[in-house]
Amino acid sequence: MKNIYIIGVGLIGGSLAIDIKKHNPEAIIHGISRKEATLDQALALNLIDKKATLEDLVHADLVIVSIPVDATVKLLPTILDKVPDSGLVIDAGSTKEAICKVVENHPKRRNFLAMHPIAGTEYSGPSAAIAGLFVGKTNIICEVEKTAFKLQEQALNLFAAIGMRIRYMNPESHDKHIAYVSHLSHISSFMLGKTVVDKERNERDIFDMAGSGFASTVRLAKSSPEMWTPIFQQNKTNVIETLNEYINNLTHFKTLMESDDFEAIFNEMRNTNHIKEILNGIN
Amino acid sequence: MKNIYIIGVGLIGGSLAIDIKKHNPEAIIHGISRKEATLDQALALNLIDKKATLEDLVHADLVIVSIPVDATVKLLPTILDKVPDSGLVIDAGSTKEAICKVVENHPKRRNFLAMHPIAGTEYSGPSAAIAGLFVGKTNIICEVEKTAFKLQEQALNLFAAIGMRIRYMNPESHDKHIAYVSHLSHISSFMLGKTVVDKERNERDIFDMAGSGFASTVRLAKSSPEMWTPIFQQNKTNVIETLNEYINNLTHFKTLMESDDFEAIFNEMRNTNHIKEILNGIN
Repeated sequence: MKNIYIIGVGLIGGSLAIDIKKHNPEAIIHGISRKEATLDQALALNLIDKKATLEDLVHADLVIVSIPVDATVKLLPTILDKVPDSGLVIDAGSTKEAICKVVENHPKRRNFLAMHPIAGTEYSGPSAAIAGLFVGKTNIICEVEKTAFKLQEQALNLFAAIGMRIRYMNPESHDKHIAYVSHLSHISSFMLGKTVVDKERNERDIFDMAGSGFASTVRLAKSSPEMWTPIFQQNKTNVIETLNEYINNLTHFKTLMESDDFEAIFNEMRNTNHIKEILNGIN
Repeated sequence: MKNIYIIGVGLIGGSLAIDIKKHNPEAIIHGISRKEATLDQALALNLIDKKATLEDLVHADLVIVSIPVDATVKLLPTILDKVPDSGLVIDAGSTKEAICKVVENHPKRRNFLAMHPIAGTEYSGPSAAIAGLFVGKTNIICEVEKTAFKLQEQALNLFAAIGMRIRYMNPESHDKHIAYVSHLSHISSFMLGKTVVDKERNERDIFDMAGSGFASTVRLAKSSPEMWTPIFQQNKTNVIETLNEYINNLTHFKTLMESDDFEAIFNEMRNTNHIKEILNGIN
């Protein structure tokens, strides 16, 4: 893989660029972005070797699409139109159903691999890119059987080189479960941040009282709205389901407090404590 | 301060024991606990030098009370009864109103200092104790004017030695604001953990999909129910207020999603993003 094109050189695209270049020093990493400033920054940070445009994709051995998921749905058919027959296109979106759907009948569907690397931080843009982000992280691959075998092989070699663990899943299951273990956490964090910031707007000193527990629970409220709004939009039905259940659980907890049933409050917490064992499996 | 008694040798008491001993090598650290096994563990971990009982407090130069806040309310008057006139008693509870209230008319009120060190982890018990836990952390002191001046001075020297930043506050303000920046985070985290664990109970593989974002938002769900139930009980009114606001914000977010108002969803997140600057001030 000599000519590699990264569309969207932010946290995920930029971090992939660093690791791919490390394991393929002979590759030329081309960056593509709507914003010239992003490409300038990516060049300055040595994430990419060259700037490029969509027209250049005719030369692509590999294309990584790491842009907001609404942009991926719009652009993916055009990207597949342009790549050569030997080219592999991989998207890194946090939703998979709408993205797989939009190319299901594309004549070059076999050139496409749908993935979701479970890796990231709350930061965004080229400056958020870091080396080794994917080591030991899970990479969910959807509809692997629809990708040409030779291109699957290339992709798996690449993922192995940068240290990812592979899990296969269908797009519907991905979107349903990721709503629970990722999308809901983001909403919980944004709304927790909003609740506290609204309340304490005029009492900035109060944040002196906040410790690492608060910081941990609201960390995701720093995430990019450009990235997350289309995720919630594409995964609307599943996310609303998780929100209903979360709100019901919070309301039940509040009702127990209002009725002074602190034995039940204790049991609610004790029963959730075993999440320790689950979390011990997560980096 | 030669004879120091730590009542409750867990995360906070044990960590204080380590740091106090480091800065006062001549001190003898006595441990007191309901459970013999806890004291054995604390001795084995070198957190304490000796086991003791409440009867021994007649020899105390300093007593640290770091037990669940319901136990503090019950025990604090007895502890004050026993200490000598020169003894300083400090509690480390996460609520302050009920604790200050129970000793407001105690003849030895001037021997007591109410504090809340904003430090900790999600772990508990002697094995959770760590050196340097308090470096750079905020220590909230309530009703400082009610403590004898000489004892205030001793306490402040101790806090300075172990690296804490001091903030003064009245107990009512403490309990009101800490509900937002600490207690609500714990409930949010416990209920998020419950929502996901309940849903995915039969699909353990799903946790392979969980990344650092999920881990961060549910980390506090590992916290001790023994410690947290009485905190919620003592701070019931404030905690219910924060829960109402949090549930309203989540419900509003859900309503925006249901009505496909993703522009408003975007703005909700954008407006909360500035929590970045606030969090940058927290370790």
